[in-house]
Amino acid sequence: MNNTLLNIKGVSAAAINAGIKNAQNSSANLNPADAEKLDLSIVTFTPETTTAAVFTQNVFCAAPVVVAKNHLNSHVRALVINSGNANAGTGVASGNKGLENAYQVCEMVAQALNINAEQVLPFSTGVIGQLLPMQCFEANIAKLATQLTSDNLPQVAQAILTTDLVEKTASKQFTVNGKIITISGIAKGSGMIRPNMATMLSFVFTDVKASQSELQNCLAIATNQSFNRITVDGDTSTNDACSLSATGASGVDINDCTSGFQQTLNALMRSLAHQIIKDGEGATKFVEVCVKGGASNEDCLEVAYTVAHSPLVKTALFASDANWGRILAAVGRSNIANLKAEDVNIYLGAVRIVKCGELDPTYTEALGSAQMQKTDIIITIEIGKHSAVESVWTTDLSYDYIKINAEYRS
Amino acid sequence: MNNTLLNIKGVSAAAINAGIKNAQNSSANLNPADAEKLDLSIVTFTPETTTAAVFTQNVFCAAPVVVAKNHLNSHVRALVINSGNANAGTGVASGNKGLENAYQVCEMVAQALNINAEQVLPFSTGVIGQLLPMQCFEANIAKLATQLTSDNLPQVAQAILTTDLVEKTASKQFTVNGKIITISGIAKGSGMIRPNMATMLSFVFTDVKASQSELQNCLAIATNQSFNRITVDGDTSTNDACSLSATGASGVDINDCTSGFQQTLNALMRSLAHQIIKDGEGATKFVEVCVKGGASNEDCLEVAYTVAHSPLVKTALFASDANWGRILAAVGRSNIANLKAEDVNIYLGAVRIVKCGELDPTYTEALGSAQMQKTDIIITIEIGKHSAVESVWTTDLSYDYIKINAEYRS
Repeated sequence: MNNTLLNIKGVSAAAINAGIKNAQNSSANLNPADAEKLDLSIVTFTPETTTAAVFTQNVFCAAPVVVAKNHLNSHVRALVINSGNANAGTGVASGNKGLENAYQVCEMVAQALNINAEQVLPFSTGVIGQLLPMQCFEANIAKLATQLTSDNLPQVAQAILTTDLVEKTASKQFTVNGKIITISGIAKGSGMIRPNMATMLSFVFTDVKASQSELQNCLAIATNQSFNRITVDGDTSTNDACSLSATGASGVDINDCTSGFQQTLNALMRSLAHQIIKDGEGATKFVEVCVKGGASNEDCLEVAYTVAHSPLVKTALFASDANWGRILAAVGRSNIANLKAEDVNIYLGAVRIVKCGELDPTYTEALGSAQMQKTDIIITIEIGKHSAVESVWTTDLSYDYIKINAEYRS
Repeated sequence: MNNTLLNIKGVSAAAINAGIKNAQNSSANLNPADAEKLDLSIVTFTPETTTAAVFTQNVFCAAPVVVAKNHLNSHVRALVINSGNANAGTGVASGNKGLENAYQVCEMVAQALNINAEQVLPFSTGVIGQLLPMQCFEANIAKLATQLTSDNLPQVAQAILTTDLVEKTASKQFTVNGKIITISGIAKGSGMIRPNMATMLSFVFTDVKASQSELQNCLAIATNQSFNRITVDGDTSTNDACSLSATGASGVDINDCTSGFQQTLNALMRSLAHQIIKDGEGATKFVEVCVKGGASNEDCLEVAYTVAHSPLVKTALFASDANWGRILAAVGRSNIANLKAEDVNIYLGAVRIVKCGELDPTYTEALGSAQMQKTDIIITIEIGKHSAVESVWTTDLSYDYIKINAEYRS
């Protein structure tokens, strides 16, 4: 998959095995393979680059999130990303060790690159409640800074992983007046499926020219249609973050390709989001829940999430059981105004299972079962005649979900 | 447990094996034992009795719920309850077979008892999407009417069960001016853990004298502190219902014992609710989530339900893993205003694990593990200095939950 990741002019990167994953293993999850794994990355940008970012809404955000938010308004020149330790639950108040360490990592990177510490955004993912092993950073950051090249993004895509099974990468290009614009993105996470090692992180790079506020708008729109529309279990990590950096090296201004850039960015981030869902541990199905006809997008989302989070629907998906009663019951308890049973139609793929709030007379178990056997399943729910439409993507709920989440740490 | 169920003067009951469970088995869940099980009950009241009831909020309520709501304002003289078939998803519009059948069952009971059909409340629980086997009712209702006695409530407690492992019963008494008032209640369900056969049903009887509106107020308050505070997986059945009937046979008016009656009713219904949670299939833990210090009861409930529904918290409970990060992350994503990390303290039993939003420095894994080994666990979460307090009760999320819900029907 890495060969699809295109370089972005103006972006350099390097990744190293700094022993951070290994440092954690001694105390919790011993895994000899971790001793070999990449776990520390730096990504740098040319001076004219602008960077936008979105962060977790969780009230308990981790120390690196606090620091990255503080540094975002400066002229960002570098990202420093470690896996193996989330630096979360370690203190975010002034003077706390967690916060101090996050600032100090930025300081080390700034010295190595001869920039200001405020120009560095830090990101961490891994076990929570443990202090960063600062010696791993001290011993490796200067070395990392000497290894920066334009074709190292695939290594960073590896180095940001924790328990992910595969790298998540995507590149897309489009043309404006004969000039090519490229967007490349990497991501990690399995939708808070493993909270101690989970965290959704994504880093997107492009060579379009844009102001920070223009980028921030584009990122907010794309996030809303991608990472904010996937759910494994409804939980939200303390470290989730996504950044978008634009180097301007294509020579094309975003104002000359606004809709093309937004559409391409949306598609790229949706691809990364879907890769995260498909790598969710225990996931045996990739499920789209599409809700149509609500009076508002919020109504459609409320119904979609109620269905996507229902453990009863998710276990039926795991069992490939076309249990329409569970979907109907989940729709019926959605917290929206004016939902009427007789307005509701439900489809599995192209097969209508519920018509006007009741079992479709033409439906048979055989038709439903054939749909449920598939690995990619689309549940479409019509809740009225209005025009709003929203989709969310999720997985089934399997034995392996319990196994992973119950046995992790024991 | 049945020997704790006290008779209520003015209440008669009878239960029979009408073959309803067996009629369903041929098509779906073959279980020879069902051929012997009680599955049809009638409970009758003396003419001066008043009855209140609350019903599922699910938009897709089943036919018997529609009929019971219609009949509630009349002078209720009888309940008719069947298990094995929920008469749900069978049509609730006028002229639909599901609705017609529910009305017809009331008609049969009315004829056998020489009352009006509008004086009968029907309740059904069991498989959904199948028509009631009317021949089972026709063949047994007249016979049932001849078997009514005052000491048959324990049989009804059995006859309303579907996949429950044990009967849920409770009786409580209190004294006013030397006169004894008795409340007895029965319940079935495992918190929508098995939606096709689940449904929460509860029937409560007392010999206090009360108007229907007085009873309805008491029932609403008690429901809110009992059945509305338990959750297994957040799903809500299409058939949930709870009724409260008062015969007046004690000679004591409710206005002479308002607070005593309410408190006793609350305690009795809470006991029934806890029995349901403890009988939840796959449940290995009984968990109270108590949230204190919110600006409103709604805020406390939002935090409590977010924690109680978190699959990550629930799998940690199953694993007896004191994974405080999962509880903290769930609190942090609760949808309430003005939640501040530094205001949050979290306790497992008497052990404080989180102090002012961060790991309590005095906490050790050994202390947390000792709490998590217990079968009954209390998670207390302080979110501020206000006075609101709310508790909800739930279970863990185990392999058996997946097994029961994924393999049921296959």
